[in-house]
Amino acid sequence: MSKLCIVGIGPGSKDYLTQIAIKTVENSDFVIGSQRALDLFENASQKIVFNVKNLEEFLYKSVDLVNEGFNVSLLSTGDPGFSGLLKPILRIAKEKNLDEKAIEVFPGISSLQLASAKTHIPWDEANIMTFHGRDDQSAILDIIENNSDTRESINSKSSIILPSKSVKDFAKFLIDSGVDENRKITVCERLSYLNEKIVDTTLKDILNSNFSYMCILVIY
Amino acid sequence: MSKLCIVGIGPGSKDYLTQIAIKTVENSDFVIGSQRALDLFENASQKIVFNVKNLEEFLYKSVDLVNEGFNVSLLSTGDPGFSGLLKPILRIAKEKNLDEKAIEVFPGISSLQLASAKTHIPWDEANIMTFHGRDDQSAILDIIENNSDTRESINSKSSIILPSKSVKDFAKFLIDSGVDENRKITVCERLSYLNEKIVDTTLKDILNSNFSYMCILVIY
Repeated sequence: MSKLCIVGIGPGSKDYLTQIAIKTVENSDFVIGSQRALDLFENASQKIVFNVKNLEEFLYKSVDLVNEGFNVSLLSTGDPGFSGLLKPILRIAKEKNLDEKAIEVFPGISSLQLASAKTHIPWDEANIMTFHGRDDQSAILDIIENNSDTRESINSKSSIILPSKSVKDFAKFLIDSGVDENRKITVCERLSYLNEKIVDTTLKDILNSNFSYMCILVIY
Repeated sequence: MSKLCIVGIGPGSKDYLTQIAIKTVENSDFVIGSQRALDLFENASQKIVFNVKNLEEFLYKSVDLVNEGFNVSLLSTGDPGFSGLLKPILRIAKEKNLDEKAIEVFPGISSLQLASAKTHIPWDEANIMTFHGRDDQSAILDIIENNSDTRESINSKSSIILPSKSVKDFAKFLIDSGVDENRKITVCERLSYLNEKIVDTTLKDILNSNFSYMCILVIY
């Protein structure tokens, strides 16, 4: 039976690749991923590049290739099971009558884990939440506003957030929604890359800063 | 500045080691971990073995060695930030006046991620909960009982659980607490090992089965 392997590649640097991710990719007939993801695998066989705009098309292509008898590795940033490609692939596999048993998932290090590691906040005690691909960010308010009166309490939880918007837009949204503009926050930018930046700041100060997309936020 | 590196080794098999975990361990003066964890690193320098009983003592020893000027890798099963060694080390470092900047954390693949991967349940949509080292398991009831009337609803969340007790005791606790004994559950045993076993079953049937310790449960 040919396989569709959804391979978690971690936050982006080679450092966080697992042994099994490397082995799986090297043993596939086709490897499908973003250019950045494909660059991590020198010894991969035939590579197929997608980008944000044509991602959906190439998810279909992955499933089609497996239905045609090929072994395919599909590269998913972070962990396929956390805001990754597992969910869309399950939907497409169903639509295309690919047996779910043909799908094998290989977890990767999620950027939320690396943010937890860098800030020394255990994530089994934090609120973790992803807003990737979600327009409605209001769910965050239940979590962080509920805690705002008890911030000094030892039991108050920090939140590790993957925002969908730019950090600046997200901070603006929080302030406009009534969250204290002096609320402490750590912005983790380009995690695992050489130009990684980890900045302790406040909501207010974020409004006057520039961060790239795809940051992770830790809200205290 | 000498470093205390808390290195996540993943669920247990070499397959899930990251490149940076291997590199970090090989560059340390001392590597401290369980025998099972140490066996993953052939090229490690001086190895120090702990077991469940003397773990605390060796956490102190790790911090002492760093205070004496050595670079130490401390091996943590799964991810140090999820039910791992990050929390106890932060406590001990404070007590022993080790600068928190001397602590570097390297995330690993948590067994909850592998359970998510094996069962195809995205964990950004699941309840995730660890009971390792916790006596009180009643928090689980809020999560799974609240859902019990709406199990058929497409929005009901699955739960991925690291129980503290044996699977049998945990199932008995749930049934005794009023959870439907026919509740569907997947037991993930010895994840990542050659004798890994993934069993779809029910709470009731678990009472007549034998599973090893340190299983991960997915409750639907």
